[in-house]
Amino acid sequence: MTDTEATRPRGVFAAVLTPFTADLSPDLPVFLEHCRWLLDNGCDGLGILGTTSEANSLSVEERLTLIEAMGASDLPRERLIIGTGCCAIPDTVRLTRAALEIGAAGVLVLPPFFYKNMSDDGLFAAYAETIERTGDDRLRLYVYHIPAMTGLDMGLDLIGRMIAAYPETVVGLKNSSGDWDNIAAMIRAFPGFDVFAGTEQYLLPALRAGGAGCISATTNAFCREAAAVYADWRGAEAAALQQHLTALRLAVQAVPVIPALKQMTARATGRAGWLNIRPPLTRLGEEQTRALFASLDSLGYALPAAA
Amino acid sequence: MTDTEATRPRGVFAAVLTPFTADLSPDLPVFLEHCRWLLDNGCDGLGILGTTSEANSLSVEERLTLIEAMGASDLPRERLIIGTGCCAIPDTVRLTRAALEIGAAGVLVLPPFFYKNMSDDGLFAAYAETIERTGDDRLRLYVYHIPAMTGLDMGLDLIGRMIAAYPETVVGLKNSSGDWDNIAAMIRAFPGFDVFAGTEQYLLPALRAGGAGCISATTNAFCREAAAVYADWRGAEAAALQQHLTALRLAVQAVPVIPALKQMTARATGRAGWLNIRPPLTRLGEEQTRALFASLDSLGYALPAAA
Repeated sequence: MTDTEATRPRGVFAAVLTPFTADLSPDLPVFLEHCRWLLDNGCDGLGILGTTSEANSLSVEERLTLIEAMGASDLPRERLIIGTGCCAIPDTVRLTRAALEIGAAGVLVLPPFFYKNMSDDGLFAAYAETIERTGDDRLRLYVYHIPAMTGLDMGLDLIGRMIAAYPETVVGLKNSSGDWDNIAAMIRAFPGFDVFAGTEQYLLPALRAGGAGCISATTNAFCREAAAVYADWRGAEAAALQQHLTALRLAVQAVPVIPALKQMTARATGRAGWLNIRPPLTRLGEEQTRALFASLDSLGYALPAAA
Repeated sequence: MTDTEATRPRGVFAAVLTPFTADLSPDLPVFLEHCRWLLDNGCDGLGILGTTSEANSLSVEERLTLIEAMGASDLPRERLIIGTGCCAIPDTVRLTRAALEIGAAGVLVLPPFFYKNMSDDGLFAAYAETIERTGDDRLRLYVYHIPAMTGLDMGLDLIGRMIAAYPETVVGLKNSSGDWDNIAAMIRAFPGFDVFAGTEQYLLPALRAGGAGCISATTNAFCREAAAVYADWRGAEAAALQQHLTALRLAVQAVPVIPALKQMTARATGRAGWLNIRPPLTRLGEEQTRALFASLDSLGYALPAAA
């Protein structure tokens, strides 16, 4: 175990939703309130400005505003991983520097995702250029593997090459492939490299295999249930707790996940503003909303009285 | 024919390459020189800041710099279509306003391309929000359909809905599907709507079907050959001219197109800086470069003495 490995965050992370005001600006007070609620209700850490956060629907300046608001708050930055990966390396570097500036634990970096069928050489060069331009020893970079959105494969060869070139910097990965075999292969291939499952459906299997935890959209709602698995993952109840957690996750996954979570958070908090969502995402339709809440009811899930 | 339709640009457009200096900054003098060369050698217009331009690998600020350089030049803005589509609507609006500011003929707008499986409602809302926020009657918007990169379908229903909602604004489309049937269907479906083929391989068929022309990567090199087809498209030689043009296009398409065009432009101009390319794209390998130039030689293609 390296020096940095011991202090790196592990466990249950929420991929934090971004609330918007009626004119679709980020609602900073409600955002910070939600972050605090997540940490108070079982999250070991927060992944902000990722897919669930609609980060790519925000301008770089808007993303900087969220990072700075986080920095000016009393939220614990050592439990924070910030999404900074853009298509353009200068944008990624700018956001990464801002994340370092506020003392974030790490950054979660998408590959540049416009072009498809990119070579390992090209993807390696993109990460290397980002790291070199950032030029900061404090940088802890988590690779963001989400092929359903990027259309890009982040294979074991590429990941291994990045770790070999930047062992103190490239410290982990969020695997949102939804493919357990792929998650397991990455955990096995790189001991000491922190692989987070992109869904709490695989929280227990990931922990048993040596993974770091999960960074998940649905832990915006199921943070307490995920925390129960993490607290007791070596215990006798772990499998049953995971089974319940998985059922909850799958109920949300049956409909568009981000709009569903905004519906759930709006209902839990009584704040209708949580329904605001940026195009191209759209609000969950009435029928899907009814089906979602019926599924959750049938699983005995009570919406938390959030915040 | 509406008032605006008569003045809208048609014919052969190059999707203009972006040259970079050794530190990967946009090389503005070389860029403007190349634009001028294209207009002097058969291009009816220029499509800047598109896929071929590596636009998504440039920050918004870098893109603004290119737009402003174009505005400060004596290049004809009425023959200019500027790519402005980003994942984040505020960025798209900012670039679109800059394009209007310099008097560009139009803007070419990608759908927000991070999320996949977006509904027509969501994609329509993204374009509508862009148009409403831009809030400028001068706006002439060309939809950019390039499913191999965006992973998104822009179906006839969606396009029709956009034209119906904004008939004076949504005036055309660049179809880079590579699928002639899809291009033809769009030309047929929307008379008076300017459909550009995304490859000069379909220049003659597009013109015969009533299309507006082509906006193509490879016309960075084959502008004179494409202009020959356009000049004589109703004539007896048109099919033979198109056949030669298609053969040239396919020779480049056999290897990665953007790196190939940078090789060709570097050789034509004697400027090695044209080889610079931003990650995740990479330079064409030696073997592919040799194969490319051998193919072009066998087609009797002489690299132009550009600029």
